[in-house]
Amino acid sequence: MNRVYNFSAGPSMLPLPVLEKAAAELVTYGSSGMSVMEMSHRSPDYEAIIKDAEAMLRRLMNIPENYKVLFLQGGASTQFAAVPLNLIGRTGKADYVVSGQFSGKAFKEAQKMGYDVALAATTKEANFSRVPTLTRDMFRPDAAYVHICYNNTIYGTKYADVPDTGDIPLVADMSSCILSEPVDVSRFGVIYAGAQKNMAPAGLTVVIVRDDLLDSADPQMPTMLEWKTMAENGSMYNTPPCYPIYVAKLVYEWLLSIGGLDEMKRRNEEKAALLYSYLDSQNYYIAPVRPDSRSMMNVTFVTGDAELDKKFASAAAAAGLKNLKGHRSVGGMRASIYNAMPREGVERLVEFMKEFAAANPKA
Amino acid sequence: MNRVYNFSAGPSMLPLPVLEKAAAELVTYGSSGMSVMEMSHRSPDYEAIIKDAEAMLRRLMNIPENYKVLFLQGGASTQFAAVPLNLIGRTGKADYVVSGQFSGKAFKEAQKMGYDVALAATTKEANFSRVPTLTRDMFRPDAAYVHICYNNTIYGTKYADVPDTGDIPLVADMSSCILSEPVDVSRFGVIYAGAQKNMAPAGLTVVIVRDDLLDSADPQMPTMLEWKTMAENGSMYNTPPCYPIYVAKLVYEWLLSIGGLDEMKRRNEEKAALLYSYLDSQNYYIAPVRPDSRSMMNVTFVTGDAELDKKFASAAAAAGLKNLKGHRSVGGMRASIYNAMPREGVERLVEFMKEFAAANPKA
Repeated sequence: MNRVYNFSAGPSMLPLPVLEKAAAELVTYGSSGMSVMEMSHRSPDYEAIIKDAEAMLRRLMNIPENYKVLFLQGGASTQFAAVPLNLIGRTGKADYVVSGQFSGKAFKEAQKMGYDVALAATTKEANFSRVPTLTRDMFRPDAAYVHICYNNTIYGTKYADVPDTGDIPLVADMSSCILSEPVDVSRFGVIYAGAQKNMAPAGLTVVIVRDDLLDSADPQMPTMLEWKTMAENGSMYNTPPCYPIYVAKLVYEWLLSIGGLDEMKRRNEEKAALLYSYLDSQNYYIAPVRPDSRSMMNVTFVTGDAELDKKFASAAAAAGLKNLKGHRSVGGMRASIYNAMPREGVERLVEFMKEFAAANPKA
Repeated sequence: MNRVYNFSAGPSMLPLPVLEKAAAELVTYGSSGMSVMEMSHRSPDYEAIIKDAEAMLRRLMNIPENYKVLFLQGGASTQFAAVPLNLIGRTGKADYVVSGQFSGKAFKEAQKMGYDVALAATTKEANFSRVPTLTRDMFRPDAAYVHICYNNTIYGTKYADVPDTGDIPLVADMSSCILSEPVDVSRFGVIYAGAQKNMAPAGLTVVIVRDDLLDSADPQMPTMLEWKTMAENGSMYNTPPCYPIYVAKLVYEWLLSIGGLDEMKRRNEEKAALLYSYLDSQNYYIAPVRPDSRSMMNVTFVTGDAELDKKFASAAAAAGLKNLKGHRSVGGMRASIYNAMPREGVERLVEFMKEFAAANPKA
């Protein structure tokens, strides 16, 4: 049971008590006589699991009653298509903010599908080292929605505040920051997130949608991407991803047990501060992100020397600090310190960074 | 560890050795220092898992080299839309055979999406108590494909042979019979299957597609439903459903260890024969399916008295024989005896049926 510190951007660490509970009840769940993996999704045992999962997520995020919670498949990438298919019918056009790779993919997907989508703002010219400053006048007043990616996993940036889009529904991909801190759900029209970073194993996507936004779907769209159909069927129009939903429930339980998202935020701030304050205190490593756009979940840094970066990642891995290599599209290093990363993991990383800098002076 | 016999139509039983292995390595997989649920899908450990899974499935099903194997999300229901989106561009029209509820849904989905689809044959007038006899002249010669559901989970029917569609690619939903016996993959253009009946936990869909059929996709379709994109990216265009794929790999390993699909077929025929020969030997229970259309996986029967059917299902559940209630749309009883159902489970069921009939004489 030699567990490592896993800084992977996703899939990523799960809380150890969650894994241990899942292992203990994997073969036979409670008095059901079967594994959760073997349960009919329409059985009372499984209905209790999915209902509890929804209730706990609602409690954790303080989700208002006029929002539906959907447990879906396909990842955020499927929602890149589902968002316009479900919403653009409201007015026929939509605005996108591109602050990194995934928001760029969302924009391209809507374009590819032939919709009238506009680029409201981007920080491409700054190499995505910050998120754009957004003001209401940047959006077309008749846009059906404004799409943003709230935390940019690859670049390590995040909006410090919820952008103000006035009456235009704000749609946010929160895959890499959901449940990391409290968020005012009522400021959003739609929140969606792939589960594999902060919530559950890969294969589950959560969509939280305000119920007045369920009536604009393209009538010819694939039924499985229709939020309204899923909402009307309690996410059981077909067989849901039962086991990932069960693990999500265990994660929600764990979050509630430690004190919910206020306490989670406190821990995450503490972990991020350990790393950023070290980065700000020295000159060996460079943190490319502008401080007011820094992500609490994904911390990026470089040595300024690609060979040294490579050496860092492999030496760290050998020391039990895995997956610190930056995304293949940007290089450098990235420490993803999601909810399940313990403080000790970040402390060990900072220690290692100091040792590495001392042992590998720059030419 | 009081495990029951679970006759659920899906999700359904998994082989006990698979569950035990998954439980044993859930917290820490091999020397990786992490759970499979926590692994980056691009890590060498996970790449080995998905590559092994594909290689084993190819070996089990003897899949020709000119077929791609895709590990996707969304269930067969998502493929109901993906099939026309990927294929109908070949000629602009497609033919459907409706032999039960799911093939009906596939047909309706293609209609809803506005495509020129025709109903080539149906056994609705026979209450789906058999599959249609299909001959080449039933299909439009310029159909892009013919769609069938190979085994009808709800009605307990199956095609005894692969229908002959001539040069028209045959597309088959095999969700409830895949891996139950050898099948000549080269007779099909596309085979797809939700995994949750005979292969893995819910949340994984396998698509096996002949590579010359990858070039007709609707250019405006959702990228995540495009088989070609998924094929070109080795099912990793985005994060795949990593853990269900890992469990599928364990199931494939188990199948290979018992002797592959020839041996699996032998065992399945034996189990089905136990039930059908009992059903044919008495008059208390009625098996509604015409013998030449009988499914080896889903065995349906009724007492002819709805109250008695209800009593049967609950008494069986109390005796550790779970989920024998028929689908809510048809009533009666259904015993789903997939690969993982041991022979002893079927023997116990036949015993129970005898006892129940003796104890509950009909009025």
